[in-house]
Amino acid sequence: MFGVTILGNNSALPAYDRHPTSQVVTMDQHQFLIDCGEGTQMQLSRYKIKRSRINHIFISHLHGDHYFGLAGLITSMGLLGRETELHLFAPPPLKAIIDLQLQAADTKLPYQLHFHPLGAEGLLVDDSKFQVETFKVFHRIECWGFIIREKRKPRKINKEKIGGYKLSAESFEKLKVGENVTTENGELIEYETVTLANPPNRSYAFCADTMYAPSLAEKVKDVSMLYHETTYLQVLEERATARFHSTTAQAADIAVKANAKKLLIGHFSSKYEALDEFLTEAQAIFPNTDLALEGVSYRIT
Amino acid sequence: MFGVTILGNNSALPAYDRHPTSQVVTMDQHQFLIDCGEGTQMQLSRYKIKRSRINHIFISHLHGDHYFGLAGLITSMGLLGRETELHLFAPPPLKAIIDLQLQAADTKLPYQLHFHPLGAEGLLVDDSKFQVETFKVFHRIECWGFIIREKRKPRKINKEKIGGYKLSAESFEKLKVGENVTTENGELIEYETVTLANPPNRSYAFCADTMYAPSLAEKVKDVSMLYHETTYLQVLEERATARFHSTTAQAADIAVKANAKKLLIGHFSSKYEALDEFLTEAQAIFPNTDLALEGVSYRIT
Repeated sequence: MFGVTILGNNSALPAYDRHPTSQVVTMDQHQFLIDCGEGTQMQLSRYKIKRSRINHIFISHLHGDHYFGLAGLITSMGLLGRETELHLFAPPPLKAIIDLQLQAADTKLPYQLHFHPLGAEGLLVDDSKFQVETFKVFHRIECWGFIIREKRKPRKINKEKIGGYKLSAESFEKLKVGENVTTENGELIEYETVTLANPPNRSYAFCADTMYAPSLAEKVKDVSMLYHETTYLQVLEERATARFHSTTAQAADIAVKANAKKLLIGHFSSKYEALDEFLTEAQAIFPNTDLALEGVSYRIT
Repeated sequence: MFGVTILGNNSALPAYDRHPTSQVVTMDQHQFLIDCGEGTQMQLSRYKIKRSRINHIFISHLHGDHYFGLAGLITSMGLLGRETELHLFAPPPLKAIIDLQLQAADTKLPYQLHFHPLGAEGLLVDDSKFQVETFKVFHRIECWGFIIREKRKPRKINKEKIGGYKLSAESFEKLKVGENVTTENGELIEYETVTLANPPNRSYAFCADTMYAPSLAEKVKDVSMLYHETTYLQVLEERATARFHSTTAQAADIAVKANAKKLLIGHFSSKYEALDEFLTEAQAIFPNTDLALEGVSYRIT
């Protein structure tokens, strides 16, 4: 299972029962929270997502609609008796804000909160099952995108082809990670002839709040699913640029340039009640587009 | 019109679609926000209460469930183009928290936010129509209660009794505020004979989060409506005391001792889904009790 569940799809001003930005990415038993706008902990409850399974939180930038729900969430995790450590990746000034809030409440969390300040592009987390990378996007203040990738899975032994050989467990492991082996009597076995490749690794890229920047396409090249903000419809391109945001057409253009498999659009301005036109405009350029709708989970394939 | 609308009636952990503490007190065209838990701005929208009419915000203490919605609300007021100044009364450490949040977002509010640090009991606001007082309550950290009072209204001229006299405008004003006047030919007119008293001034007391303290009854003596927290039912008195909270019976006892006209109870622990017993237990001691229910407005009479 690899997918993303939308908790908030609106821009700064909550409207029409749409909430500020927050998403949960699920990869098997792992859950990653990306951004944490006000009300995120209530949205997690509403959609029956267990707070206890989230061990990594990524905050793209310090506009309030992307993190004002964080202090409530980490406090509630404490009240619920969490003991597992929590890793928080965010722009550096967030640490002082959280420290002050905990201090004012005279609260000591019952779990370790590891604060990882964002500062350079590249790898943030390197687990045996997944990797998380960060890259800079273009907003009014310092702002980061994130890519969550499955890690290369071992190849599968092709039982029909391997039938005649007797090999050590070590040799099997080598074949599965793509290395050739030599048998006791000197025969070379090429991994490609006796193993099957798994499907390619899937990936999800979250582009946060950003103005249109073709260079982003390189950063998110070939991802399985690209989330790109579309605060405005195409006609408001000037306003989008002035406010460091993007339009439907711009997001779709990035998806084309990046060769993304699928595009998810969100961060809709509160000036729009209906969202249909966002989809129409983006699909005209990049057909495999979906609206990021709250409470909906999108499979990453 | 004088009343209070409940936006959040739950204790620290949001549960059963109940929200953390927030209330709006309405007195004619004035609105006062008391506490501002996470999600308050969404609750204001849900119950169609205009953010623009709120010019005073009072924060009882710095546990997150009483103020984590504040940064979002004041930011949204700015995005909506507010120009009217806003007065915020809160424990001193809140100022640094808000300043850091605005600075991290590179946000300058388009209106004046006046921060008034709470530090001493007594009068906070003295308007021609109302007064707001604060008093200390007993919680794990510094915590304040608030009383909003109507100001003494002028008496009404009794047209039947005043018929025979010819008086200056100034003399009428004196009679209305309860002073006797003398006519040009030396006749004494006693204000009580020619004016009618208005009904007594109404008042609303908010006791915040507090453990049981009989001395509070003196502070809120004779109020028209007393809000007192009841985090727990009567049987959990020990837990309530250990956590600096109160039970139904304790809240009702304060209402009796204070000679309050009506009692409103709230701040229910998330361990309780049904609230009926809170009402039953409190009414057994103080019959004129109501549950603080979200979205409901209670008239103060």
